[in-house]
Amino acid sequence: MAETIPHWLDKRASLSPNKVAMECEDGTKITFGQLRQEAQQLARKLRNMDIVKGDHVAILSPNHTMMVKVIHALSYLGAVAVLLNTRLTAHELQYQLEDADVKVLIFHEGQAEKACGLQINKKISFSTVMDLVEAKTELHRELTLDDPFTIVYTSGTTGFPKGVVHTYGNHWWSAVSSALNLGLSHDDKWLAVLPYFHVGGLSIFLKSVIYGMPVYVMEKFSADRVHQAIMEKSITIISVVTVMVQSLLERLGGETYPKSLRCMLLGGGPASRSLLQKAQSKHVPIVQSYGMTETSSQIITLSFEDALDKIGSSGKSLFPAQVKIAAAEQSDGVGEILVKGPMVSKGYYKKEAANKETFHDGWLATGDVGFLDDEGFLYVIDRRSDLIISGGENIYPTEVENAIALLEGVQEAGVVGKASAQWGQVPAAFVVKEQGSDITVETIQQQLSSHLAPYKIPKEIYFIESLPRNASNKLMRNKLKEIAKN
Amino acid sequence: MAETIPHWLDKRASLSPNKVAMECEDGTKITFGQLRQEAQQLARKLRNMDIVKGDHVAILSPNHTMMVKVIHALSYLGAVAVLLNTRLTAHELQYQLEDADVKVLIFHEGQAEKACGLQINKKISFSTVMDLVEAKTELHRELTLDDPFTIVYTSGTTGFPKGVVHTYGNHWWSAVSSALNLGLSHDDKWLAVLPYFHVGGLSIFLKSVIYGMPVYVMEKFSADRVHQAIMEKSITIISVVTVMVQSLLERLGGETYPKSLRCMLLGGGPASRSLLQKAQSKHVPIVQSYGMTETSSQIITLSFEDALDKIGSSGKSLFPAQVKIAAAEQSDGVGEILVKGPMVSKGYYKKEAANKETFHDGWLATGDVGFLDDEGFLYVIDRRSDLIISGGENIYPTEVENAIALLEGVQEAGVVGKASAQWGQVPAAFVVKEQGSDITVETIQQQLSSHLAPYKIPKEIYFIESLPRNASNKLMRNKLKEIAKN
Repeated sequence: MAETIPHWLDKRASLSPNKVAMECEDGTKITFGQLRQEAQQLARKLRNMDIVKGDHVAILSPNHTMMVKVIHALSYLGAVAVLLNTRLTAHELQYQLEDADVKVLIFHEGQAEKACGLQINKKISFSTVMDLVEAKTELHRELTLDDPFTIVYTSGTTGFPKGVVHTYGNHWWSAVSSALNLGLSHDDKWLAVLPYFHVGGLSIFLKSVIYGMPVYVMEKFSADRVHQAIMEKSITIISVVTVMVQSLLERLGGETYPKSLRCMLLGGGPASRSLLQKAQSKHVPIVQSYGMTETSSQIITLSFEDALDKIGSSGKSLFPAQVKIAAAEQSDGVGEILVKGPMVSKGYYKKEAANKETFHDGWLATGDVGFLDDEGFLYVIDRRSDLIISGGENIYPTEVENAIALLEGVQEAGVVGKASAQWGQVPAAFVVKEQGSDITVETIQQQLSSHLAPYKIPKEIYFIESLPRNASNKLMRNKLKEIAKN
Repeated sequence: MAETIPHWLDKRASLSPNKVAMECEDGTKITFGQLRQEAQQLARKLRNMDIVKGDHVAILSPNHTMMVKVIHALSYLGAVAVLLNTRLTAHELQYQLEDADVKVLIFHEGQAEKACGLQINKKISFSTVMDLVEAKTELHRELTLDDPFTIVYTSGTTGFPKGVVHTYGNHWWSAVSSALNLGLSHDDKWLAVLPYFHVGGLSIFLKSVIYGMPVYVMEKFSADRVHQAIMEKSITIISVVTVMVQSLLERLGGETYPKSLRCMLLGGGPASRSLLQKAQSKHVPIVQSYGMTETSSQIITLSFEDALDKIGSSGKSLFPAQVKIAAAEQSDGVGEILVKGPMVSKGYYKKEAANKETFHDGWLATGDVGFLDDEGFLYVIDRRSDLIISGGENIYPTEVENAIALLEGVQEAGVVGKASAQWGQVPAAFVVKEQGSDITVETIQQQLSSHLAPYKIPKEIYFIESLPRNASNKLMRNKLKEIAKN
C-alpha cells in the first residue's frame, strides 16, 4: 500500500519553524517557517494559472531560491514539476515541453529570451507570478508516496530524451537512504552548487526539508567562492562532480578544510586514481557515488574509509537498494549493472517501449557495464551507450550523431568522448560527408548550435570515408575512440 | 505499492560486517557478520520444525541475545514472531498462543517450567533448536514492507488481549522516523534494558540493523549496572521508563553522565514535573515520548531543548506521523487523541470489530484524551480506559476487573491505579462480595495469581457495598480513585 505522510514542508515548518532552510551568498537566510509561508502563497498565486492536481508545470531557472519555492508550491497543488536544463537550446526545450504535456511554463527572468521562443499556451515569469493575487484554494496537506512529483529528462541509451518520473516516494527513500549512509547531524549544512534542474541538485533541497537541514545556495560554481564558503560557512557536506574537485583541490593548495566538512559527495562520473590520491593526501573526505536520473541521485556509494582500499570502485548499494550484474556472458563476472530499490523511478513518462526495455521486476537496467568484487563493491568499467560525461553533464553520443546526420551534406556521424583536462571529457565527431558535399567543421558546429546545448556540440570534428562497423553493422565506437586519442 | 528492500540483516552484514551488533555485559561482542551467520543457521535449523512463510511462532524469553537471533531467523523464513511477556501467567499465555494461532513455541531454558504447562503441539527450547541440524532451504533475501513480522499483545480498551500485528514496514518507518528526530551518528550505541518482548525494547534491535548500530544488551534493570554501563561503555542512547529514571537519578547523585550520552528516551507513561526538573538540573538529556504497541514504539516526542518550556507535554509527532484531537465535545479543544503514520499498525490479528472501532482512514484512535497547544505540542491528560502504568507495564482495569468478577463469592469489582513512589502506579481493587460470601483479600490475591501476571494483581483490595455508577450505569472509576487516594 502506498504510504501517506504529512506534506513534508508543512511538517518540517511545524517541527523546526525557526531553523534555517536556505542560506544565500549575500547572507539572506530563509527559515522553514518562512519557506512554508512563501511556498504556500506561491501555490495560491499559481492556482490562478488554473494549475490543478496532476498538471505538468515546467520550470526554467538557474540555481535560485525562487526555483526551490516554486517546486514546493507545486507540491501544495499536487502538480508535477518538469525541470528544464537551462543549457539546452530552444529546440531541445520545445521537445521536452511537448513530450511532457506541459501546461504552464514558469521561468526565471534571466531566461526570458529563451522562454520567449518557446511555444506553449501559458508561460509566466517568477516576478509575474509574484504579482498575482492569491486564490482561495485547498492546499495539499498530505503526500502520497506513489504520486508523481518531478520529471527530469535524460537522453538515455536510445538517444531520444525521455522524462524520468520521480514520485514523492522516490525522493523520500533517496533522502532517507543517504542519511542511513552518511549519518544525520543537527549541525549539518549542505552546499548546493550542482544544477538544481538535475536530480543531484534538486535532491539536496528535499533532504533539507526531510532532515531539517540548511542548504547553502550557490548559483554557479566558482572554485574561489566554494572554497571560501567551505572555509567560513560551516559547510558539512557538499555535492560535486569531478571537474569541481579538480579546481577545488587546486584552490586548496597547502591549506586544509575545517574538520566540520565531513563529506564531499562526488557524483556524475568516475574520478581518476591520481585525483583520489591527491584528495586523500589533503584529507578531503571524498565519498564517491554512482547514480543516475532514474535512481533519484546516488544509489551506490563508496565511503571515505574504503576509498584507498577500493580505488576505482563506486562502492556498495545504499541500505534499501540492491545491485547485481546481469547474467554475464563471459566468465569474468562482467555484465550489465542492474539496480533495484524504492528510490528507483517506476518509469519514463509515456515511453512504454523504453520502460519495457529498462525496467524488469523492479530492476533497472542501467546500460552500464561492470562487476562486483568478492566483498560486493561495484566497479563500473564501461558507461552506458558510450556515455560522455563532460563537466558533470551527460552527453549521449546517439543524440549528437542524430543531430549531425540531419544536416544537409552529411551522410552519417559517429560521436565519442575525448579526454579533456578541464571537463573530464568533451565530445568528438567523425563525419561521413555526402558525395560532393563541401560542408566544413565550422558549418557543422554553427548549425548544431540551434539544436544542441553548447556542451553537446563536438569540440573536434574529423571527416572520415566511412564509419567502422562490425559484422552486424553496429557502429564500433571503440575504434573511433582509438583514433580520437591520437 | 508495497516497497521491497533487501533483507535488512543481510544488507547490514554486507555493509558493516565487522561492526558490533550486540555487546553483552560479560564483554561478549557479536558483529553484524556473525549475527547474520548465526541467524541464518538458526533459520535453517528451525526449518526442521516445519516453519514456513506466514507461520506464527511464539517466543518466550527474557532479554537475551538468543531471543534476538531467533527473531531474525524467523524473518529469514518469512514467519511471524509472536512475542510473549514472561511475566504473564500460564493462563494468560495460553490465551495468546491460541488467539494468535501459534504453530510453534520457542522458549528460553529459564522459562521451561512455564512453557511446560502450555498446551501447544510443538515447543522447543533455545538449546534444543541449536542441536537441530540445518535443513536445506531457501532463505528470504528480501523483505516486503507490507508483510507481517511481529505480533505483540496489548489488552487495550476492551480488556481483552489483542495481538497487534507489525509489518516490516511499521518497524522500518519507526526506525527511520526516530533517526530523523534524534539524528544518526556512527558512534551511537543504544542500551537495551526494557523488555524485548515489548515493542519499545524490540525496536532497538531493528534500529540496530537498519542504522548499523551496536546495542548494549542487559537482561534486567539494575540502577547500579545501568549507571556503570553509561559511565564506562560509551552509551549514547538509552530507552527507559519513569521508574528507571527515578532510580538512575538517585544513583547518579552528584555525578554527571559523560557527554556522549545524548538521549535518555523516556516512554511508557508520563513523568512528573519534579522528576523532569531533577533530570534537567543534573543535565540528563531526557527525551519524553508517547507511543503504544500499536504505533511500533514512540510516535510523539519532546526534545530535550523543549522540555523545560513544555513541561507536561509529550511533544510533537515524528516526521512522517500526524496527530490530531477528535472533534472535541467541549470548546476547550480537549478530546480523544488520534494518530496516523506508516509506523502505525494496520490492525489487530483477527479482531474485526476492534479494528473497525480503532482504525479509521489510517487514523488510530488511541483512547487517550488530550489537547494540542498553539504550537502543536501534545498534552495527554487522561489515559485510555483509565490505563494503569506500573513500572512501565500497562495494566487495563477491565482485564483485572473481569478476572476478579470470575472468582467465586465476588459479584463485581472496580480497579483503579493508585500512586506508588516505587512503580508510579499500582492497581487497587474495589470488590463487591456476593451475599453471604466470606472471601478475603488474601484469597482474592492468591486465586488471581494463577490468572494474572504478578504486576496486574491489586496490591490493595477494598470491600465495598456497591460500585459507583452513573445514570447510564457506567462505572465511575474517578470516584474510586478519590477513595483510593485516602
